[in-house]
Amino acid sequence: MRLRNKPGAEDKLLAYGQYVVSTPEEWKGRWNERFDKKQPLHIEIGMGKGRFLIEMAKQNPGINYIGIELQTSVIVSALEKQIEEGLPNVQLLQVNAQNLQSFFDKGEVDRIYLTFSDPWPKNRHEKRRLTYKDFLYSYETILDEQGELHFKTDNQKLFEYSLISFSEKGMILKELYLDLHNSEVENNIMTEYEEKFSRKGNRIYKTVAYFPESK
Amino acid sequence: MRLRNKPGAEDKLLAYGQYVVSTPEEWKGRWNERFDKKQPLHIEIGMGKGRFLIEMAKQNPGINYIGIELQTSVIVSALEKQIEEGLPNVQLLQVNAQNLQSFFDKGEVDRIYLTFSDPWPKNRHEKRRLTYKDFLYSYETILDEQGELHFKTDNQKLFEYSLISFSEKGMILKELYLDLHNSEVENNIMTEYEEKFSRKGNRIYKTVAYFPESK
Repeated sequence: MRLRNKPGAEDKLLAYGQYVVSTPEEWKGRWNERFDKKQPLHIEIGMGKGRFLIEMAKQNPGINYIGIELQTSVIVSALEKQIEEGLPNVQLLQVNAQNLQSFFDKGEVDRIYLTFSDPWPKNRHEKRRLTYKDFLYSYETILDEQGELHFKTDNQKLFEYSLISFSEKGMILKELYLDLHNSEVENNIMTEYEEKFSRKGNRIYKTVAYFPESK
Repeated sequence: MRLRNKPGAEDKLLAYGQYVVSTPEEWKGRWNERFDKKQPLHIEIGMGKGRFLIEMAKQNPGINYIGIELQTSVIVSALEKQIEEGLPNVQLLQVNAQNLQSFFDKGEVDRIYLTFSDPWPKNRHEKRRLTYKDFLYSYETILDEQGELHFKTDNQKLFEYSLISFSEKGMILKELYLDLHNSEVENNIMTEYEEKFSRKGNRIYKTVAYFPESK
């Protein structure tokens, strides 16, 4: 995503400490205390402007959601949605996804969402893709034994790459859709991006996968 | 494939004993003796009319090929191609793929091709799909440690099903193409079926997978 600088974004993030976690290491192992209720924890890595996360949180009050996004000018849009909604089950985290294990305890997370992640098409950027093996290792660590990775993209090459990466890690596919919008799937919540691309006729790919020791 | 009865097919298969193996159990563990040269063995399961197999055999004289097809009226078309070509590295086998382990020794096969297999779309026919778990177990047995399964189809549902089935078996994907004809792949040999469907604009899916102990 090309980023435009958003004036006042930094200040806004600081001003809403109840929604934006400024010292995430301190909450490792006790994220439930940041929420009204102790209930399952789902996180989205690279949530962008947060539409998917906020919609999910509205529809599923029995789940706590943490949205992770590094870019100030983007996470602030998610914050604005949350200011409007004031959902008790949403927290936002501005950190680098490479350090997930500093912020979450072993097995602390019940589900990870990756939706329309940056494809980083160049080979030399492989390590930045959120389905690169190093990320999968950290997902495996922070996910509960019953935990799942939900991955959705319109980028064919990224999806091909990711399925290979999952197989090398021994992950097991629970669901797979090679053309999500022409499949029988209930209640698919679209991001801004998904809606735009789907309207153009692009295929959306989705899989739900888990690690072999679990399930 | 809808089958038309082909008069004289049975007789023709019997008449060409040098190409069509009538007692396959006898050759288990010594398939190399059926060929001019001892060299890697690739088999195609459900070869249909044999265009892919015959083309592969022509292009790769350093590999022995066995084409497997149960239907008399179909395998005879493959035989007719082989009568014309007289390739020393082609043998045809009219057997049920469910008994592969009766015909091939452990590790005797270097590569298995599945090209445009019958999708058996109904749930109650799942066990007939050539990527059903029972088949995968037999492939694992007869494949050499370095062996690979090459799977190509235009059927999206079958491909989705198969990738899930492979993942449950712990298979590792070496290559994956979600739109083969729009990918950078060299020297793709098409079956009659593939050519027809590709002309219609259908996507062709392909993967190369192997079993975890191997490679």
